[in-house]
Amino acid sequence: MTTDTLSLTFAALADPTRRAILKRLTSGEASVTELAAPFRITLPAITKHLKVLQRAGLITRTRQAQWRPCRLEAAPLKDAADWVEQYRRFWDERLDRLEEYLREMQEEDKRHGRTPK
Amino acid sequence: MTTDTLSLTFAALADPTRRAILKRLTSGEASVTELAAPFRITLPAITKHLKVLQRAGLITRTRQAQWRPCRLEAAPLKDAADWVEQYRRFWDERLDRLEEYLREMQEEDKRHGRTPK
Repeated sequence: MTTDTLSLTFAALADPTRRAILKRLTSGEASVTELAAPFRITLPAITKHLKVLQRAGLITRTRQAQWRPCRLEAAPLKDAADWVEQYRRFWDERLDRLEEYLREMQEEDKRHGRTPK
Repeated sequence: MTTDTLSLTFAALADPTRRAILKRLTSGEASVTELAAPFRITLPAITKHLKVLQRAGLITRTRQAQWRPCRLEAAPLKDAADWVEQYRRFWDERLDRLEEYLREMQEEDKRHGRTPK
């Protein structure tokens, strides 16, 4: 079981329901019932997802209010973004190579007097 | 068990050993033995990690060569980056609020003739 912050963040994001919950919270605080509404899953199942998000520091639950609304905490996502960003040049490289290949194909076509596809 | 691409990517990243393997592959292809070397774990454990990375499309293994080197495939990381980037304004907002708070504190100090801390 990994417990480093980045692993907790990525593990929390590795589920479509949890990602949808975070998305919903971008438009403001919400109660557990409100968060459960769009999903065909039980309240205990939602609570389990919320615990994973809470453990990763991606949401907090207000203690003051009776209904304890959930609130998005985006800070851990910054580290996740920074980690992934290190690889940008590798996915860009692939696109660069593809662009270069297409350019070469077009030049080849021109040399042979073909109209580009 | 989630099988959507984004969940597979995030789940693959939710482990420090797997992240270290990807990091190692940024400097070029490597054999399983080479990838295992820096870790105090068994070859079968590394193979298990490689399977998770392979299933997420983050690495490929060349079929031609006898030693079947592993190779980084960064494309799925682009979608992960795009997903996380949607939340940038939320972590920036927090920093903006903190900056604003510090500015207010400094102005308060000036008004009271205190030297800034």
